Amino acid sequence: MRAYEGAPDGAMTTGKLITFEGGEGSGKSTQARQLAERLGAANISTIVTREPGGAPLAEKIRDLVLSDRPAAAVTELLLFAAARAEHIAVTIAPALGAGTWVVCDRYIDSSRVYQGDIGGIDKAFIRAIEQQTVTPWFPDLTLVLDVGAKVGMERAQARGGLTRFDAASLAQHEQVRQGFLDLAMAEKDRCVVLNGAEPEAEVAEAVWKAVTERLIATAG
Amino acid sequence: MRAYEGAPDGAMTTGKLITFEGGEGSGKSTQARQLAERLGAANISTIVTREPGGAPLAEKIRDLVLSDRPAAAVTELLLFAAARAEHIAVTIAPALGAGTWVVCDRYIDSSRVYQGDIGGIDKAFIRAIEQQTVTPWFPDLTLVLDVGAKVGMERAQARGGLTRFDAASLAQHEQVRQGFLDLAMAEKDRCVVLNGAEPEAEVAEAVWKAVTERLIATAG
Ligand SMILES: Nc1ncnc2c1ncn2[C@@H]1O[C@H](COP(=O)(O)OP(=O)(O)OP(=O)(O)O)[C@@H](O)[C@H]1O
Ligand SMILES: Nc1ncnc2c1ncn2[C@@H]1O[C@H](COP(=O)(O)OP(=O)(O)OP(=O)(O)O)[C@@H](O)[C@H]1O
Ligand SMILES: [Mg+2]
Ligand SMILES: [Mg+2]
Repeated sequence: MRAYEGAPDGAMTTGKLITFEGGEGSGKSTQARQLAERLGAANISTIVTREPGGAPLAEKIRDLVLSDRPAAAVTELLLFAAARAEHIAVTIAPALGAGTWVVCDRYIDSSRVYQGDIGGIDKAFIRAIEQQTVTPWFPDLTLVLDVGAKVGMERAQARGGLTRFDAASLAQHEQVRQGFLDLAMAEKDRCVVLNGAEPEAEVAEAVWKAVTERLIATAG
Repeated sequence: MRAYEGAPDGAMTTGKLITFEGGEGSGKSTQARQLAERLGAANISTIVTREPGGAPLAEKIRDLVLSDRPAAAVTELLLFAAARAEHIAVTIAPALGAGTWVVCDRYIDSSRVYQGDIGGIDKAFIRAIEQQTVTPWFPDLTLVLDVGAKVGMERAQARGGLTRFDAASLAQHEQVRQGFLDLAMAEKDRCVVLNGAEPEAEVAEAVWKAVTERLIATAG
């Protein structure tokens, strides 16, 4: 949770919320795990979680969306938003409140890009839902892993688990990529774009540099 | 679907959407079935459906809400809204578009009352979701069955299937009742309040009178 303006010294005892965003196969799950390990090794209590999912009811909603394709784009938006509200209530808010850091694989920006840019749902409506479900649990730092459509889809294919999202065309993949870049540009205080096409260890170094510079160097 | 202002003669070939609203045990399901039969007997093609539910994915969402109590009130609102979006896309809109009348057991007013008046969710947010999910499929006629809390709960108990909603206290039941009465008062063009405490056959007569006066006498 971001410190509110004018917060007195010592008022922020909550953990930090770090989210990974980017297209298919950009390395989000890989980097989320590695960052959580590195934070743990630095004696920062950390959990890693994912969206949609991250809480029992939210995981059931995830299964429902993936198995029964909704007939209306707005149904999908509302189901993901419901899963997020539950994820926050059950998992994220209690952890942050206890001072634990939370590393989350996909979060609000995925809704903005997939339901907004791709799904064509009114962006003001998406933001209204966000305000009602996420407040005050906005990310302290969002790491956007940027890879070209071809690289991302090849990796996702090689990994095997092609979900229905992976069936998206290369063109749509590029649209997703551009959506994340635009969001990162519009919210530079929160977002850092990293080149996800580099080798895993190099991406991990860039992630760690962003986290230490943005959150650890400034903490306390 | 309500005829839009200035619609040319003959432009409205869609069916009518009639909803039943009211607290537990007020007789909604009973009257919805009877009205559908009576419309059918009058050679008006009619389906009867219910909320939450009324479409395969929507029924699964209903099961989820009833089995895994959501941790946040907003989760419940979003799940019911998702179920409604699906219900409309899969069941209600196609039927109305084909000229079939739709009788629905609970609809938008239940969300307004249970999530708004009882759940305490921002009413402007509830209306924003409604606009995005229901438009243009607002009811042509809403029949509010009004019964005292004691009568309603006794009936629901006698019927057997006490859902978790039935566990609400009598005081909450009265708050629900008042919520429906307030909505009906605010939208008199759409809503008719009927005394649900009368014997079943008498309520059915009052329902039929409202439907014929409001929708059938004015049709064509
Ligand atoms: N920097 C990298 N270089 C090469 N391969 C990588 C790199 N990062 C991840 N991979 C591999 O690419 C595949 C996809 O990575 P990962 O599952 O982390 O992506 P993701 O962004 O979580 O994808 P999805 O959105 O589909 O969940 C995995 O097999 C992973 O081992
Ligand atoms: N007018 C009536 N007089 C007496 N009993 C009635 C009347 N209408 C319905 N009942 C009985 O009361 C019980 C509840 O009725 P019903 O199931 O139609 O209510 P409901 O509004 O659909 O309730 P719920 O909100 O719990 O679904 C049933 O057993 C039904 O047979
Ligand atoms: Mg992943
Ligand atoms: Mg009923």
